[in-house]
Amino acid sequence: MPLKGTTRLIGMIGDPIAKARTPALLNPRIAAAGADLAIVPLHIPAGAFGTVFPALLTLGNMAGFIVTYPFKEGCLAFADRISTGARLVGGLNAMRREEDGTWTADIFDGVGLLNAVKAQHDPRGARVLLIGAGGAGRAIAVSFAEAGAAAITVAELDDARADGLVSGLVAAFPGCVIRRGPPHAAGHDIVVNATPVGMNPDDGLPGEVGDFAAGMTVVDIVPAPAPTALLRKASAEGAATIAGSAMTDGQATALLRFFGIEE
Amino acid sequence: MPLKGTTRLIGMIGDPIAKARTPALLNPRIAAAGADLAIVPLHIPAGAFGTVFPALLTLGNMAGFIVTYPFKEGCLAFADRISTGARLVGGLNAMRREEDGTWTADIFDGVGLLNAVKAQHDPRGARVLLIGAGGAGRAIAVSFAEAGAAAITVAELDDARADGLVSGLVAAFPGCVIRRGPPHAAGHDIVVNATPVGMNPDDGLPGEVGDFAAGMTVVDIVPAPAPTALLRKASAEGAATIAGSAMTDGQATALLRFFGIEE
Repeated sequence: MPLKGTTRLIGMIGDPIAKARTPALLNPRIAAAGADLAIVPLHIPAGAFGTVFPALLTLGNMAGFIVTYPFKEGCLAFADRISTGARLVGGLNAMRREEDGTWTADIFDGVGLLNAVKAQHDPRGARVLLIGAGGAGRAIAVSFAEAGAAAITVAELDDARADGLVSGLVAAFPGCVIRRGPPHAAGHDIVVNATPVGMNPDDGLPGEVGDFAAGMTVVDIVPAPAPTALLRKASAEGAATIAGSAMTDGQATALLRFFGIEE
Repeated sequence: MPLKGTTRLIGMIGDPIAKARTPALLNPRIAAAGADLAIVPLHIPAGAFGTVFPALLTLGNMAGFIVTYPFKEGCLAFADRISTGARLVGGLNAMRREEDGTWTADIFDGVGLLNAVKAQHDPRGARVLLIGAGGAGRAIAVSFAEAGAAAITVAELDDARADGLVSGLVAAFPGCVIRRGPPHAAGHDIVVNATPVGMNPDDGLPGEVGDFAAGMTVVDIVPAPAPTALLRKASAEGAATIAGSAMTDGQATALLRFFGIEE
């Protein structure tokens, strides 16, 4: 900082993008590490993604991208190299330009959220309700399965999306009971909202979740406005809560390392 | 500063862009004015301009563009409203998105350089040699003609470009003697290099300029590496010199006002 002519950019793309916390969170850490690099919010209107994103890839000073809703899946087609996690999830949240000009994709959403959960609730043996099997939801499911969750219920209205995730997880993690189900909290230890419901102040709950109870941990990936209706209800009913900022915060170090920043 | 999710961007586009001084010069002034706005270098490879620039225009958080070599002319086709100066020059160096989504174009290159020259040499009555009639050169020619120069010699190898500028200036400024000529310093009071010759460290002079003399003022719009071969020769021969940074510095306030920043 400040941005100068030589600064290489990491474009943070999404629609909307104004509520993204990553630029404000990571730019000071990048500057402190002495790198001439900056994370720049780029609001791509969703309908223009197919023409705009290929154009952004050709910019000479683009070091990479951090990708948020709704582009995590669409970006994958532009990557030359895809990590195992990103391939299993079917989405990415980070792309890096290598020295030879090719692009490497990875995903850190699940790692970030899992780190935040671990501080409050041991994921090993836990019964997890995952609401939403979009890009972030799938990354979270993979991370919980890898961390030793006993069971994962996937609540998702889109059949193809839900069945794709369940069959992929079942094949990769035979020790974890994975099935589709309604978004009811009862019978679960950890509940995760991985839908965008809650981004608008007048959004309600992401489905008929029923009652929460003490001993449960409820996580909402929606970063703002915090707390969401879901977390307010969970808190009122005695459950522990983790706000959306935790996912972002928990993956910060992993993202910086992916982009070659050593702190 | 720092850049955050809500930050609106002014893309500084060029090929190359790494030597552009405007981002480092103006971002601290924008931050000091309290605006959530940042100038971001975007290196568009020249051959990709036709596909990349329209894509950048669709980004939702683009407040505008600052345009440098070689895109000042090409951008004009994308503006809905063009200032008189930009129209006469046939190029722009700034584009602003209005509230209704339309784009307004203007050019401040000539104003910036003229302000720098005025501090050392009165342009009124001066005989000016202008080497290069590209976007910046034409802007400089218009500003010297407006400021009351007695004569302007335009040294430019491209016939169409040179004749277009001369005929436009002759029509607009009947009191100024405007003609094409070789890039010889003799007989001129002020010499301006408005070509990119000098941007590479092993570039020579922008033509066979002959000898400079005391009383002359020699200006080079190339911002780095400073001083260029042209300015080293001018200085050795007793002429006053103005480096490329002056053009950038002299237009800073005008650019900020164009983008709505009041200091």
